[in-house]
Parts: sequence; structure tokens; C-alpha cells
Amino acid sequence: MKQYKILFFIADGLGDRPVSKLQGKTPLEYVNKSNIRELLKNSLIGLMDPISPGVVPGSDTSHLSIFGLDPHKYYRGRGVFEAIGAGARLKASDVAFRGNFATVNNEFIVVDRRAGRKIEEADDLVKELNEKIGEIDGVKVRFYHGTEHRVAIVLSGKGLTDKVSDTDPHEINKKVLESKPLDNSPESQFTANIVNKLTRKIYEVLNSSEINKIRISKGELPANIILLRGAAEFVDLPQFESYTKLKAAAVSATALIKGICEQIGMKVVTPPGATGGLDTNYLGKADAAVELLKEYDFVFLHLKATDAASHDGNVDGKVYAINKMDEMIGRILDKFGSELVIAISGDHTTPVEVKEHTGDPVPFLLYVPYSIINDVVNDFNEREARRGSLRIRGLDVINLLLNYSNRAEKYGA
Amino acid sequence: MKQYKILFFIADGLGDRPVSKLQGKTPLEYVNKSNIRELLKNSLIGLMDPISPGVVPGSDTSHLSIFGLDPHKYYRGRGVFEAIGAGARLKASDVAFRGNFATVNNEFIVVDRRAGRKIEEADDLVKELNEKIGEIDGVKVRFYHGTEHRVAIVLSGKGLTDKVSDTDPHEINKKVLESKPLDNSPESQFTANIVNKLTRKIYEVLNSSEINKIRISKGELPANIILLRGAAEFVDLPQFESYTKLKAAAVSATALIKGICEQIGMKVVTPPGATGGLDTNYLGKADAAVELLKEYDFVFLHLKATDAASHDGNVDGKVYAINKMDEMIGRILDKFGSELVIAISGDHTTPVEVKEHTGDPVPFLLYVPYSIINDVVNDFNEREARRGSLRIRGLDVINLLLNYSNRAEKYGA
Repeated sequence: MKQYKILFFIADGLGDRPVSKLQGKTPLEYVNKSNIRELLKNSLIGLMDPISPGVVPGSDTSHLSIFGLDPHKYYRGRGVFEAIGAGARLKASDVAFRGNFATVNNEFIVVDRRAGRKIEEADDLVKELNEKIGEIDGVKVRFYHGTEHRVAIVLSGKGLTDKVSDTDPHEINKKVLESKPLDNSPESQFTANIVNKLTRKIYEVLNSSEINKIRISKGELPANIILLRGAAEFVDLPQFESYTKLKAAAVSATALIKGICEQIGMKVVTPPGATGGLDTNYLGKADAAVELLKEYDFVFLHLKATDAASHDGNVDGKVYAINKMDEMIGRILDKFGSELVIAISGDHTTPVEVKEHTGDPVPFLLYVPYSIINDVVNDFNEREARRGSLRIRGLDVINLLLNYSNRAEKYGA
Repeated sequence: MKQYKILFFIADGLGDRPVSKLQGKTPLEYVNKSNIRELLKNSLIGLMDPISPGVVPGSDTSHLSIFGLDPHKYYRGRGVFEAIGAGARLKASDVAFRGNFATVNNEFIVVDRRAGRKIEEADDLVKELNEKIGEIDGVKVRFYHGTEHRVAIVLSGKGLTDKVSDTDPHEINKKVLESKPLDNSPESQFTANIVNKLTRKIYEVLNSSEINKIRISKGELPANIILLRGAAEFVDLPQFESYTKLKAAAVSATALIKGICEQIGMKVVTPPGATGGLDTNYLGKADAAVELLKEYDFVFLHLKATDAASHDGNVDGKVYAINKMDEMIGRILDKFGSELVIAISGDHTTPVEVKEHTGDPVPFLLYVPYSIINDVVNDFNEREARRGSLRIRGLDVINLLLNYSNRAEKYGA
């Protein structure tokens, strides 16, 4: 049996609900999508619940799931994925926190939870912290800058746990909290001690930093503390190639998605001009996927623009991004041909009038380059997808792709 | 509520894809099936994923699943089901291996991995091994002959595990491997030692066997070793009657299926002329099912011919077997009447042009002998099944059968 290559195209936040500005159509219904419609002649179509019906996925839990990794097993909290998105690569039993640069007075009372939010010197502050705080009591400490005032902190060493409370009081005019053990284990006591020592050490370094002296001299708030929350232990993620036997690559410009893909061993490419926004280089990403398809069995192509437009409530933007998405498929079919298995879906629904993720299922299309009993539908969208034969969960996707690319191993005899 | 008897008819490998020789129809679409179509007036119909979407089932994992036993819990590897198919009945913590009769020289280098493949004396060799090797270091050893050069070995005793490596080097001109522990437990060390002692003992017995002396004198390769692979621990299978309250029987001519049915406590009948091939005694099997329905609540009727034809790429054969399958249903309705619940499906898809199992869903029909809201479809096949209301997994089948036969117990109060 011929084994086919696999293209898996995720348009982030693709799913939607009827939009009044589009006369009750969803953006996917509104756009003509001539290239994607061409695939319908030999496709299965249906609805996917990225986690399970009604569960509102994050992009992290959803991508774990559609890559075949049960988030209920592997997802222990946002700290880990915030760190991965900020560039950390983790090992089993590392404990990661999300954090904010913030401002405290000399009594440790929080004056501003974001130190004025805009901190142009954040990279330099993180560098200084990494230089001056290498470890505490034998526990290695690494700092990563996310976006704006956001940082991630990773603790590595023996005897750590994520069963400790936040230091972030989540309100101003409150004192920075002591981290407390959340169970009776010695690991919780040990980790809470580390976090509290670390918090004082961070204050010492930041409060005496030349950068903050300059900020104060300019009338800005000093970023003299990091408030920590969301402790999460990293559960070692299996390598994608080890459980799928697929040599895999990804095209993405989004830090969190790139991080997840890298963490499970995919090669990750961000072509010039790819931004994660509506202004991204759509065809550059399609071309990058075509190049990768020549060398890899499995290429994951991630488009963030659909979700970015949805969060902004930008109907025209979402319509624009879906038109561009269809152009991307057309470019890939033109350049690579149609001798491959193609899955097209979203990682979750982000209705453009809601501007947030919802737990609605997303339409899913699976094109197969040989004769199958195809689902007879008129288009690829939320409404027509209900008439197809697929009603799957995110965790089923990899099995379907392996089966229809003739790469599945039999389970049993 | 009247409780009905249940007939569960599995045509092995029934599902298919469009077949060019049948003008793009599947074999199920191509065959008229007047008796099965008669059932559609009061049936639910739909698609079943024997394991989950896209997963390619083996006949062993699939039958566990459709009998209500989660293979992810009960399936530990092929050794166990090879042994069951070869006639072994296992107890919890028994460890089973698959093996080949093979030929080694006196330095234990493999000369032929199948000892010439055709070993007419295999039953006698197995008998001699069972007589001469009863146990090793307190571990009971049993040998079973499968088909051709294949054997299964079952170890019973305390302190055993399946965490040991194969002795089969999987290539000729390589030395028989030492079995090695795959973890640090004392059980792995103990089991690996047993396997290595057993391998030497097998060589001693077989190499000095009169049977092999005769083979050599005829210019044949001696079957003087058994190469072991696929160690698997038997996880005790619950008895079908204990979790369904159904007195159950099965009609089958296929060793693996008979073994699974017996292992979960069903009475198993193989009528005269039933072969597991296209030449099987179709109506004899139907008649056997009718007889069993008089005494048992649940009768499982297994037809292997559909799968045999599929693996051979024999389109006409599959069409023939499906015609016969319809005759079998007709015979049962004639002789027993239609006052029973009938499920008809396959254990997996084996497209006749692919000749191997695939992970496509299989059509599923559930006939009920009283008024229900039936699914309005034109036929029972892969295409029409998509229009029905059922979209189930193998593990759902027993619950559906219990519900519609009015035999289900309420889950909760």
C-alpha cells in the first residue's frame, strides 16, 4: 500500500457562530473557498470536539489533544505552557510559574501589578536576573520573558512539586503573599521555601538594578518584583515521532504553538514575514509547508490570523484570513499536487462576536487521495459539517491521519 | 417488559471501500441482501469504530471490545491471544509467548527461522516437548501448536512478568538471543532466566528427537529450536455472563475467536463443515445458531469467510460470502422467527483491494422486534449507514444489545 504524506492545517479559532454582519452566516460559510471546496469530491467531513463536547479548549490543551496527547494526562497548568511559549524547553519534573513584572513598595505592598505594563527593558531585566540568580539551595532557576510584563520562571532540581500557592495577591495594595505548601509532603514545604527565598532574591536584584534607577528617574514605576502564579509540573511529553513513526515538521509564527511543536520533537519553521497576525505572510507559510512536505512525512501548518481577528471582533479580518487560508491550500495543491492526505480544521471555536474561545465543535475536513466513500456535502463549514460522517475528538485525529495515509500499525492481530 | 433473545452476527472484515471491479460499489452495496433488507423496517443503523476512529483493529482487540472488554485494559500483547487461538486457556499472571519452530546449528546460529515452514510433525514435536519439559525451576511450561511452524508457550507460576526481551533474532545467520530483563524488577530477571533455560532445554529435547533424525535423513531441516517473541501477561478476562447476566454461546470455526469466546465463558460450537474459509458450511452455522438460541440468551455467530476473501483480494469471493451471509439471516428468521434482537456488523474493515485491516468504521445494524423510531435508510452498507443514527464504538455494543432486549440494569437509581 502506498504511504501518503500528511498535511495538517489548523486555522486557530476557525470555528464560529452566525454573524449578524454576514446575514447570519458564519465566516466559513460566507467565504467561497474554491480550493477547499475542490477537496470535497474525495473527503470525509464532520465535527471535532478538540477536548470533548462543550469543553472550552485553550490553544495549549487543544494542540496537545490534536497531536494525540491526552491533556488530562499531560497538562498540569498554564505555568508550563507559558514557559514553553516564552522559549523554555523543559524536562520531566521541572516546575514552571507564570509571573508578572510588578511594582512593590519597601513593605512589599503591591503598588502596580504590571509595573506600568509597558516595560521596554524586560529582556534586560530577565538577563540580569538570569545572571545574578543561577540557583537557590541547589535548585536551578531560569527566567524567560514572554510578552509585555509577562515572565515565566522554571525551577529544576530534585524534590520539587507544583503543590504550592501563588505569591501574586491578584490585587493592588495587598502584600506579596508567602507561597504555602498545598499538601503535607516535604516536597511542598521545600518548594514553597524556594519560592519565598526566590521572591526576596528577585526583589534584591531588581530593586538595586540600574535599569530601575533609570526608570524611576524618568518617572516610571520600577519593575522591582515578579508576582508568581500557576505553578505547574512538567510531565514529560512523548516525542511525536516515537508514537507516530512520522518524521514531522511544523510551520508556525506563534510562540506557544512553536514551543509545543519543538517540545515534542518537530522541526519548526517560521518563514520571513510570518507574524501570527492578519498581516502574516500567508503564501510564504504555504511555500514553507510545500518545501517541508518534500522531506517530512507530516507537516503541521498553523495559521493564527483567524483567531487574532476573532479575539478582536474583526469580522472583515476573519473573512480576509479565511480567503487567504483558501489561497494557501490552492498554493500547496498547485506546487505539491494532491497526492497527499490533508486535514483542515481549527483548534477551537472563537466566535468573532464573542471574542473568546467557546466549546462549540469545529468543522473538520479529511481529504484522501484515493477512492473512498466520500461525504456528500456542499461546502466546508459549521453547518454542512453536521451532514458528514465524522464526529470525532481531538485525540482521534492522529489515528485517522495514520489510517488514511496507510501508515497505521494494527492494534492486535 | 418482555426480554428478548439476542443474535450477534459478526462477518469478519466485512467493511470495505469502493471496489473498481464492482463499478465503485462496496461488496455490501453490490449484493442485494433481501433478508437483511427486510430487517431495516425496524432497525437502527449506523457506523461503529471497533476501537476508536482511525485505529486499525486486530481481530483480538476488536472482539474484546465488541464483547464489552476494553482492550486498553485487557490486551497486553499478541503472545496471549496466539496461545488462546492455539488452544491454551489461561489464568491471571500466566505469561505467554509466540514462537516459531526453527533450525539452528550447534553454535545456536539460526539457519532457518521456520525450519522449512512446512512441519507435518509439529503436533508430535509439541507433544514430546510437553512430555519432556513439564516445568523449570517451579514454573509450569506448556506448549501449543498453532498453524504451520507456529507455536505458543505458556509459563505459569509465581514471580513471572512479560517484561523480558525476545530470543528470536528475527534474521537468519544470527545467534539465538539471550532473553533479557526489560526493567530492574526481580521478576524480570527471574523470567528471563527461565526463558533462557527453557530455550536450551527445548534445543536438547528437539535436537535429539527421533522425529528430527528422520527429517534430517529425508534431507529436511530439523525443527530443533523454538524462537520466542511477544511476551505477554494474561490479564484475567471477566466472564461474559458475570457482567452481562446473559447465558451466552458462540458459533465459530476460527481458533482465535473460539479461544476468546471460551476464555470468557461462552459455550462454543463448531458445526460439521464449518471451516473459517469460503467453503464453510454457512447454513450449518445458521442452524447451529438457531439451536443455541433455544437454550441461550445470547448467541454470537462469527463468519470468517468475508475476511478470508478480503485478505486474498478475492472480490467475487467476498460478494459470494455476503450473499451467503444474507442466506444465513434468512434461515435464522425462517427457523427461529423474528422475535429477537439482531445485531449485524463486522469486527473491522478489510477492503478487498487493500487486503489488510484498515481503521475505517464498519456499518452496524440493530434490529428490534417491537416498535421503535427506526432509521430510514435504503440498505445496509457503508454508504447508507452514514445516514443512520448510530455512531458508536465497539465498547458500546453490549450496552445497546442489553438495552433493546430489555435486559439492561439501570446504572444508578
